[in-house]
Amino acid sequence: MTTIDEHLAEARPRHLEELKDLLRIPSVSTDPEHAGDMGRAAMLVADKLRDLGLDATVHPTAGHPIVYAEWLGRPGAPTVLIYGHYDVQPPDPVELWRNPPFEPTVEGGDLVARGAADDKGQFYCHVLGVEAHMRTSGTLPVNVKFLIEGEEEVGSPNLEPFLAANRELLAADAVLISDTHMYGPGQPSVMWGLRGLAYVEVHVVGPSHDLHSGLYGGGVRNPINALAAIVASLHDDDGRVAVAGFYDRVRDLSDGERAEIAALGFDEAAFRAELAIDASPGEAGYSVFERITARPTLDLNGIWGGYTGEGAKTVLPSHAHAKLSCRLVPDQTPGEVEELLRAHIGAHTPAGVRVEVVSHHGGVPFLCDRDAPAVEAAARAFERVWGRRPVFIRGGGSIPIVASFEQVLGLDSVLMGFGLSDDRLHSPNEKFALENFYNGIRTCAFVLEELGHASD
Amino acid sequence: MTTIDEHLAEARPRHLEELKDLLRIPSVSTDPEHAGDMGRAAMLVADKLRDLGLDATVHPTAGHPIVYAEWLGRPGAPTVLIYGHYDVQPPDPVELWRNPPFEPTVEGGDLVARGAADDKGQFYCHVLGVEAHMRTSGTLPVNVKFLIEGEEEVGSPNLEPFLAANRELLAADAVLISDTHMYGPGQPSVMWGLRGLAYVEVHVVGPSHDLHSGLYGGGVRNPINALAAIVASLHDDDGRVAVAGFYDRVRDLSDGERAEIAALGFDEAAFRAELAIDASPGEAGYSVFERITARPTLDLNGIWGGYTGEGAKTVLPSHAHAKLSCRLVPDQTPGEVEELLRAHIGAHTPAGVRVEVVSHHGGVPFLCDRDAPAVEAAARAFERVWGRRPVFIRGGGSIPIVASFEQVLGLDSVLMGFGLSDDRLHSPNEKFALENFYNGIRTCAFVLEELGHASD
Repeated sequence: MTTIDEHLAEARPRHLEELKDLLRIPSVSTDPEHAGDMGRAAMLVADKLRDLGLDATVHPTAGHPIVYAEWLGRPGAPTVLIYGHYDVQPPDPVELWRNPPFEPTVEGGDLVARGAADDKGQFYCHVLGVEAHMRTSGTLPVNVKFLIEGEEEVGSPNLEPFLAANRELLAADAVLISDTHMYGPGQPSVMWGLRGLAYVEVHVVGPSHDLHSGLYGGGVRNPINALAAIVASLHDDDGRVAVAGFYDRVRDLSDGERAEIAALGFDEAAFRAELAIDASPGEAGYSVFERITARPTLDLNGIWGGYTGEGAKTVLPSHAHAKLSCRLVPDQTPGEVEELLRAHIGAHTPAGVRVEVVSHHGGVPFLCDRDAPAVEAAARAFERVWGRRPVFIRGGGSIPIVASFEQVLGLDSVLMGFGLSDDRLHSPNEKFALENFYNGIRTCAFVLEELGHASD
Repeated sequence: MTTIDEHLAEARPRHLEELKDLLRIPSVSTDPEHAGDMGRAAMLVADKLRDLGLDATVHPTAGHPIVYAEWLGRPGAPTVLIYGHYDVQPPDPVELWRNPPFEPTVEGGDLVARGAADDKGQFYCHVLGVEAHMRTSGTLPVNVKFLIEGEEEVGSPNLEPFLAANRELLAADAVLISDTHMYGPGQPSVMWGLRGLAYVEVHVVGPSHDLHSGLYGGGVRNPINALAAIVASLHDDDGRVAVAGFYDRVRDLSDGERAEIAALGFDEAAFRAELAIDASPGEAGYSVFERITARPTLDLNGIWGGYTGEGAKTVLPSHAHAKLSCRLVPDQTPGEVEELLRAHIGAHTPAGVRVEVVSHHGGVPFLCDRDAPAVEAAARAFERVWGRRPVFIRGGGSIPIVASFEQVLGLDSVLMGFGLSDDRLHSPNEKFALENFYNGIRTCAFVLEELGHASD
């Protein structure tokens, strides 16, 4: 009988081609022009799972479809729910890609394409981990349910309703998610925390139309200047968020956790070198790694107003705009933080302009139970493949659905990421290390075994 | 013999059609795509002047061509140099125009098109004023030279070299320029001052590539936040420019001039109502009219960075940019103010980002000799057409070439504008009141007579 390792060795070229086929579909969930591509991507995933012997369905939603598939051939054994997302971020700025973002290209040891690591390449490791069992033994060590959505990058507006409406269908013992990154190359990690998100758009409106800066300059509040003053007021000189009440609900880091973080030996100089910056300032009193994983933030994501083309146009613009977002930690909530932002912005709006604040999607922060059985199963699978125990870290990003799994389904999520911190998620030339793809598939096959053993 | 007034009454429909033909040419000087249109506009102007009996030439330059034409049939009489520009501002944002910007449309008493008032409609008044003499008497009361350039909206980079290289050709007694606006409808004005301009672009560069705000937020100086802090530092709480040394060379307003401005009775409430703003704040201690005409300013003209499309993208961008400009008054100079800006921005650049400051064109401020003969000739022509003496005001805009006429040719400029303050210069739906077009033509015909009488 073929072993899982023999199967995986033989199947490598085909596995790469299958992932490339999925990456070629520009499934950009935020862009209405790609609605058809969303359906194509969902169908491709469902067809693959059906080929493996799972019962697969594409569920329409008010937005993009959800792929659900299940194999329940082992009554009495645990059931694992595998979550992933087939949608991707927009590829902008497209001109900075070395190759077109939806023409996957192998460069050295990396596969470069939009979605390579976030999250097509990673959830596909689970698909191929299931394949490894099916093609070698024709069965799985545990019951498996797949839930692959198409709206993660726009805040999963239709997934939580789907969870609430399908509690029985989705009943499981734990959730496995591979949509995060490892602590470093060769050093696997289980991510036990994620930050939440509050995201707003600020519109500053001044005069009723664009003005000539010579004829009106000096007599009118300039909306860009006003916006800049509002933005500048959001931080104090110590790099802390200056919004009143922002830190009220933040759980302090324990001495134990700060020691665990210090023991990781995060290399701040390498961090700066990677980004070509000569300083990495932020909230006073915290290390860089603490700040990017376990402390809340406020960042501008976009700003625009007035003339932005070539040359010099002497316009005094009628309006200016910004997108800004906060990363949240327990026990902050998006709704509360948005209200604090609205109050602060309102209080800092100068005379002569009006300001409108529009909320985008948010997500609550998450910290998991580090003693759950599925956490230990994932740790053992990592150790078998990578030769060392994973470290436990908190991640700075947001997967709002993790909180929904806890709140709606009562399920712990195990975040077993195969990405690397330099995968350029959301940026041009996003990549996924091929070694992590192949090792990820093997880890996904083994975690099912380990979950089966855990129930023996 | 036909009188000038009879000719003008009869020619009205044709005059409007001729101006429309000129406005249909999208002569946007800042946009390389319109290079061909620049040549077409220059040719149209030269052909018209040639038809009137002037000796007209289109002079190529390193940029857009200059139209020069002359009629020197009255030896011993004064010579007047009429300046204007056939280039226009970009029409952006195009979607806010009620009709396409280069399809001139009569709406009520206005002609709406890009360039209608700035400056095609206004310099064409002089062309048709000359026509009025030529078609009625076949001669002109004074010698006339036209200098119509195509780069005013980009800082006239090739006009000053042209002046310097053609001092003899351009020798005259005064310059007439109609590229400004009247104090109000029915109230003509001679503008005896203009503000100068210093214009820079600021580029803030942080990490080497766009980052995921979850994975990096808190550990990296955000270039947009840094830019906003720099911009906010440019003003103090009293609305004064906070750049060290900015006011050192500013000539204070005399009590007499402040009294003259107060006597105009500028209606600040109407100003706010026109712009739909509830306050018109600015530099403390000065009235709105003082601030928009006779005090220096600093305004943001554009800002951009990060994600500016639909929806929410959680990017921490690699760079952010702004265009900003100062309106200057005597004795500030663009070069000095740019250096002050560079020093201020350098001193306010936080750790973790680099800033580059790029200079665009500038212009020195101007105050003319109110006792010059050409000023009085213009005042009498205005009074004959509009039934009242013009008021003398300073304008807030910049016509850098006015300073060049003084410095290179030693010539006083008389700014006899026919525009109105609500002409939406540089904005969508720019317009020129038809009454002002027709009265402007008559004023231009009469000012030549008055200049002739002045020399009798």
